[in-house]
Formats: sequence, structure tokens, C-alpha cells
Amino acid sequence: MKLRRSGRLVDMTHYLLAHPHTLVSLTYFADRYQSAKSSISEDLTIIKQTFEEQGTGSLLTVPGAAGGVKYIPGIKEKEAKDTIKELCALIAKPERVLPGGYLYLTDILGSPHLVSKIGRLFAAVFANRKIDVVMTVATKGIPLAYAAARELNVPVVIVRKDSKVTEGSTVSINYVSGSSKRIQTMLLAKRSLEVGSNVLIIDDFMKAGGTINGMISLLEEFDAKVAGIGVLVETEGVEERLVDEYISLVKLTEVDIREKQIDLTEGNYFDFLEIEKKEG
Amino acid sequence: MKLRRSGRLVDMTHYLLAHPHTLVSLTYFADRYQSAKSSISEDLTIIKQTFEEQGTGSLLTVPGAAGGVKYIPGIKEKEAKDTIKELCALIAKPERVLPGGYLYLTDILGSPHLVSKIGRLFAAVFANRKIDVVMTVATKGIPLAYAAARELNVPVVIVRKDSKVTEGSTVSINYVSGSSKRIQTMLLAKRSLEVGSNVLIIDDFMKAGGTINGMISLLEEFDAKVAGIGVLVETEGVEERLVDEYISLVKLTEVDIREKQIDLTEGNYFDFLEIEKKEG
Repeated sequence: MKLRRSGRLVDMTHYLLAHPHTLVSLTYFADRYQSAKSSISEDLTIIKQTFEEQGTGSLLTVPGAAGGVKYIPGIKEKEAKDTIKELCALIAKPERVLPGGYLYLTDILGSPHLVSKIGRLFAAVFANRKIDVVMTVATKGIPLAYAAARELNVPVVIVRKDSKVTEGSTVSINYVSGSSKRIQTMLLAKRSLEVGSNVLIIDDFMKAGGTINGMISLLEEFDAKVAGIGVLVETEGVEERLVDEYISLVKLTEVDIREKQIDLTEGNYFDFLEIEKKEG
Repeated sequence: MKLRRSGRLVDMTHYLLAHPHTLVSLTYFADRYQSAKSSISEDLTIIKQTFEEQGTGSLLTVPGAAGGVKYIPGIKEKEAKDTIKELCALIAKPERVLPGGYLYLTDILGSPHLVSKIGRLFAAVFANRKIDVVMTVATKGIPLAYAAARELNVPVVIVRKDSKVTEGSTVSINYVSGSSKRIQTMLLAKRSLEVGSNVLIIDDFMKAGGTINGMISLLEEFDAKVAGIGVLVETEGVEERLVDEYISLVKLTEVDIREKQIDLTEGNYFDFLEIEKKEG
């Protein structure tokens, strides 16, 4: 369909946002809008400038015959700070304290809007790593894993704690939960992960890191590599952390069960975020 | 930040796509871009026209002081047909047949790109119903539920088959699985669903409908109403369907375990989709 510049800008923006981390050739857009490549180039310059000014992300231009343009979702430091501050305020509500000092996060993880924001934070901080797949463990980490994977344009694999007939044959391992020291099992469908994959592990909560450590052991069974670890909440004051490098959005410093007081600070996210030079 | 028309079109498109089913006032945009409301109005006319021509969806204009504009994700009949055809072709692959005649769908449900497309199909067909929340049951339906909920701008609640301490107190029911006739339990966190909510149920697979029927019983415990039911795959030839009205994308007509032959057709989706008159 022939479109004028204004229409092209609207539709190209939509197309690029729906296809992050995907190389799109100029020819594709030229055919899509029945326009000259030179016009498409000018459109892309406008989009690139707006995306960078507004902190939407960047447009990488790959030159040459096999080239094109690639949208890399990003985030401005200020927006990241604001989102993490918002998450801290939400999580700190006293009514979240459950018996045993656990926190009720179901509503936060149930909000697609918040979940998308968290996914963008992870996608931005891991944008430059080689990632083939995002892995998480059922159930709470699933929405976060999908939100990050969508922006990184990679599939999701879900580790389970019970076997399901619809998964086909599985590989299972036993692991020791870091805090309760109990032996547990986790398993992954054999055909869900290719040998040698670079895997980003995403989860909602990390205490000692036993579950994440279990996922790392499971990856070894597939000769797969850990490309990164991202968690929404980590807890401070863990005696012996089982996981080395990880990125957390929020750090839980104290839960006072009696007073229903929850103390949180920013996680280590900003130690890893490459800060955009151009703060518009 | 002051932006010219071209930049405004790019950023407004991004903003509207990220905030579906949300009323945005013209004042918000006028302030965001330091532009006159009349210019914003003209921008919105261009975006509306492009969205409608390309089948992205529609922009509803709400007049008056409390008015504004609302982006309603939609889909063109042709795009919906193509997506469902693509799903049928993917699901029909012989290597999906598992022992017992089950189908391996984990890779399809693990693709954020496919899952987003499925979510858009559901969001388009349920766009005009009053929906407060999307409900699904762990684990496989979760990504589909989030993909639909994101486009409908409502939260997700997840029914579980086992109790978790991080859910707080729960309401549980027993139900009879339609095909295996076994009694099972499902439960939902008490504070995750408000009384009187209008609930869209989304799941990946429906045979006799026992699981979905269980969710309907659970809703009764919360005095909540079923606003709609959407499934990715339904199976044909079920003697006694436990669920009345539902929308399916794909219908499984036969699985020949020995020959590894899977037969599929379009589900009843197009009986429900309001077809856009303007096919660009």
C-alpha cells in the first residue's frame, strides 16, 4: 500500500517496535510502502532520532547488500530509576507480609503493564550480550521471562518442578534449595533447548540462589552457557550466595513480620546499565 | 520536550501502542510535546487513518472535557486468517505427536512472537466486551493470558493446582477432569480477584472442557462473571462438552498416533470476529 511520509512514520514505528532485535532490510520497507529507498532512509533517520531522544532505544544501521536496520530496545537512566522507585514503593506496602516473612507479589506480577516495564529494564541491560533463549522456572518468573524475551526477540524455556506428559521426554536434576536446604527436583523438556545455547536466566525472587543454581546445573546437562542472570528482587544479608554475577532491580533489606515493615533499596542494576550519553 | 510533527508521530505511535484500551487526554500529548491541541488533533487523525488502513486497530475519540483518545488493538480478517493458517501448519508437524496422542506445543508457546500474535487475535475478538481481568491455569496458558491481557490493559490471575506459601490464603474447589474423569483440585489466591469481576478465561487446550469448567466454578466462589472464553486449540469429536460459548483459534480434528498424522482446521474464531469493513 502506497503511504505518504506521515503514514510511513506511524507504520514503520509500529513495525520496528513489534520486531525488536530483528534486521529489517530497506527493500522490505520500500516494497511495503511502494516508496524509494532514499525516502525510507530519511524516515529511519527521523525515527532513530526520536527513539534516542525519548529513550525508546536505538536503531542500528547495518550497511551493505545484506544490511538494513535493527531496533534495539533501550531505556534512559531516569526512566529506569523511576520504574525501580515505583517497584520499591509498591513492594514496600505492609499488607504484603505473609506468614513466615514471605511477600505477596502476585498482583505486581499479574500486571502486564508493570511486567512489560520490568521486561524492558532487563532487555536494556542485557541488550549487548549474546542471548539465544530466556529460561525461567514455573510459575512466578514466567511473565517476567516472556516480557524480557519479547524485547530480546528470543524464545522462552520453562523449567518445571513436576513432570507433564505434554512435555515429552525430560532431563531432570536434583538440587539443594539454598535457604531451606531441602533436596528438590527440576526438569526441562529435552527438545526445548539446543546444545550450546546462550541462556539468560530470569526469576522473580532470589534468596540464597538455590533455584537459580539448580537452573545452572540443568544448563550443564544441555552443554548450554549462562549469558546472564536477572532477578526482580534479591534479599540482602544472605550468608552464602550460591550465584556469582547477577543483576537485581530491587534489594530487600529487611522484613519485620511483627511490625509488617518492609525495607527495600535499589538493586545492583545501575552497576550494569550502560548509561546513554544523550539525556534528552 | 518540544517535537516537530514527524517526531510527534513516531513518539505518539509508540505511546499509544504501549497503552492500549487507555484513555489519553489531548492535554497530555499537548504538554508532552509542547504543542497546540489543534496540532495534536491533526497528528491523531493521521495515526488513526494509518492504524485503520494497516489493520493495527482503531483510535476511539471521546469528546468533551474528560475526553481524549483510546487505542483499541484490532486485526484485519486477512491477517487473522494468515496467523491461524500459520498456527495450523506449525501444529500439524508429525514430530509433535507424543505417547498417548498428546501434542508437544511447548516451542509454539515458548515463542514470544507467536504468543504476541495469538494475544492480538484474542484482544481483537474480545475488544468490545467488558473485561476486568484475564484468568488462566498454570502453566501453559500463562503466556497466552498475558499476551491478551497486555492488549486489553487488564491484569492476569493465575489459578494453580498446588498451594504456595507466597499466595497467601486461597479459595479452592474440586472439579472433575472432563476426559480422564478424575477429581482434581484448583485454587486461587483470595486477594487476587475482586468480587463481581468480569473475567476472560484463556487457555491453550480444551478437550471436554473440564479444566475451564473448573475455573468457572471457581469464579462462582468470587461472585465473578465469565466475560468470555478463548482457547488456542480445541479438539473435535468431544461427546459431551462441559462449556457452552467459547472461541477457538484452531480445531484439532484427528491425531493418528501410529501414522503420526495430525489434522487441523480453523476454529470458530471467525464466527465471532467483527469484520472490518475497510480492507485496505
